[in-house]
Amino acid sequence: MRQDFTTLSEFSEILQQLPAFDRAAQDAAQARNGQLTKPLGALGRLEDLAAWYCGWRSDPQPSISTPQVIVFAGNHGVTAQGVSAFPAEVTAQMVANFQAGGAAVNQLAKSVGARMDVHALALDRPTHDITQGPAMSESDFVEALGVGWHAVDPKADVLVVGEMGIGNTTSASAIAAALFGGAAEEWTGRGTGVEGGALTHKAAVVARAVAVNADCKSNGLEVLRCLGGRELAAMAGAMVRARLLRIPLILDGFICTAAAACLHAARRDALDHTVAGHVSAEVGHAKILKHLNKDPILSLDMRLGEGSGGALAIAVLQGAVACHSGMATFAEAGVSDA
Amino acid sequence: MRQDFTTLSEFSEILQQLPAFDRAAQDAAQARNGQLTKPLGALGRLEDLAAWYCGWRSDPQPSISTPQVIVFAGNHGVTAQGVSAFPAEVTAQMVANFQAGGAAVNQLAKSVGARMDVHALALDRPTHDITQGPAMSESDFVEALGVGWHAVDPKADVLVVGEMGIGNTTSASAIAAALFGGAAEEWTGRGTGVEGGALTHKAAVVARAVAVNADCKSNGLEVLRCLGGRELAAMAGAMVRARLLRIPLILDGFICTAAAACLHAARRDALDHTVAGHVSAEVGHAKILKHLNKDPILSLDMRLGEGSGGALAIAVLQGAVACHSGMATFAEAGVSDA
Repeated sequence: MRQDFTTLSEFSEILQQLPAFDRAAQDAAQARNGQLTKPLGALGRLEDLAAWYCGWRSDPQPSISTPQVIVFAGNHGVTAQGVSAFPAEVTAQMVANFQAGGAAVNQLAKSVGARMDVHALALDRPTHDITQGPAMSESDFVEALGVGWHAVDPKADVLVVGEMGIGNTTSASAIAAALFGGAAEEWTGRGTGVEGGALTHKAAVVARAVAVNADCKSNGLEVLRCLGGRELAAMAGAMVRARLLRIPLILDGFICTAAAACLHAARRDALDHTVAGHVSAEVGHAKILKHLNKDPILSLDMRLGEGSGGALAIAVLQGAVACHSGMATFAEAGVSDA
Repeated sequence: MRQDFTTLSEFSEILQQLPAFDRAAQDAAQARNGQLTKPLGALGRLEDLAAWYCGWRSDPQPSISTPQVIVFAGNHGVTAQGVSAFPAEVTAQMVANFQAGGAAVNQLAKSVGARMDVHALALDRPTHDITQGPAMSESDFVEALGVGWHAVDPKADVLVVGEMGIGNTTSASAIAAALFGGAAEEWTGRGTGVEGGALTHKAAVVARAVAVNADCKSNGLEVLRCLGGRELAAMAGAMVRARLLRIPLILDGFICTAAAACLHAARRDALDHTVAGHVSAEVGHAKILKHLNKDPILSLDMRLGEGSGGALAIAVLQGAVACHSGMATFAEAGVSDA
């Protein structure tokens, strides 16, 4: 089984040999769950999350001790079209802020005890303007996938990938429109704060990007190469690596989920090791999640990216796994069953 | 200003002199929020939670370091009517389980770094059967309010109160029906697992309790005395004490919220220092929250009680406050504003 790649066809090959969910571990977890000192089902979604986690970890009584949050940053040629409320240099400024520990995701990662890593991907070489053609050459794309791939700590027991990249909601909207169809307007949201006429303009840019790259619609990875960005490709690379390492992954917001959707298009069960951490206020996010059949853990009107919603959702997964693995059974506690 | 009570009229007196929200601290917090390195509003609900927390703590840049979760347990005479899927002795067995650290709320409190306390209230003296008359005499009620009052750690910086008491969803349903009207069926849910004919029977018991105690509808505290239980009264006592100490409180599920609703009935702004931690799967919970105009932080189909949903929501509040107080400003980080 291939453990690394240097070409896109090798990466595609990996995508065809993903490890499967461990039903025996899930069954053992569910048997344990039925004996815990609570009415069966009374922890609701927490019980489902715990069983899912056990299956992917191949462990009926696991713990979460080493969460990892990775933020990938990239620059986008499409900012030349005036699609963002913030100037493009903010990407590099925010990378410095992540490194100094001053951003929202730093606080949230710390709050749940997660290791946080930041990877800036060739910020001095923005991707090509997607209204003119594909965002990345095949070699640029493979390089970005590889950055994500190698960023994953094999010792992590839950992973969140997030992003920073001025212009990248435009990229994510174009991906969603290419994968799922529908008018560009339906997929185009406010991003960091675009409104009114600027929003109409942004939707037109998305429509043009999709039309110009119509040839890429043939498969998910091509959509990601042509309409994505380096940070989106890196997130996808990390998602696939996490699968190989059996590290459950919590999806973040619109952009993270758009990158994930490209993997889903390439292979229907590619996201089975992931859950949706939250649903953001960005207009297209709930719609993509519906296409992916993912029910978000949190719904708090967040729309920041950076992995912030995913990082916060780690706390819920930690709670779920702590209950599952730490609670006493009826027999252990001497509690009468129903 | 009264700081303690020995009679119900003294408790009522305290309820009339509650400290108010600190708008100046909230304004200062909101000014800070506008300078943090993110688009304004991009953290959604987290920003509102942080501002609310700052106002109650009278601190524009607070931290959360000493959360407290308190579980109160009581027994209910109404169990004689066969309203629960579990036998009444489970209350005492679960108290032992809380003390040994084996219950769900123990794991969740630990997961968010909270101190956890358990108070068993006269388990050998169940409240009177509410289908026959008031649950508690005035002195029993005042004693239970006092247990909650004195259980609050003045050093806590966020509080969750939860409960355990076989039969107490019947009590909570009766409270809700008495306070808000409507048929008993609308307020009666499965509790720990009551279904079919047993659920119809439970609703009839609720209706009878409300009818028998019709004289108590005159005010919120009387509803709590007549239809509540010792653990519900203790939660209410702790809620009022938290208000005096300016400790923000996270409401748990149906039973906790029913106890809170009695305070709301007694004084409309009595719950301003509280947020709804979650909405449970118990049928009446979402309806009470709507009456209280509280938007739940989490919605995970939990229906366990114990403070479990509230304890999990501490993690979200911690994340909100960590972002608010820990993030760099645009100026500090050298990031360009929109």
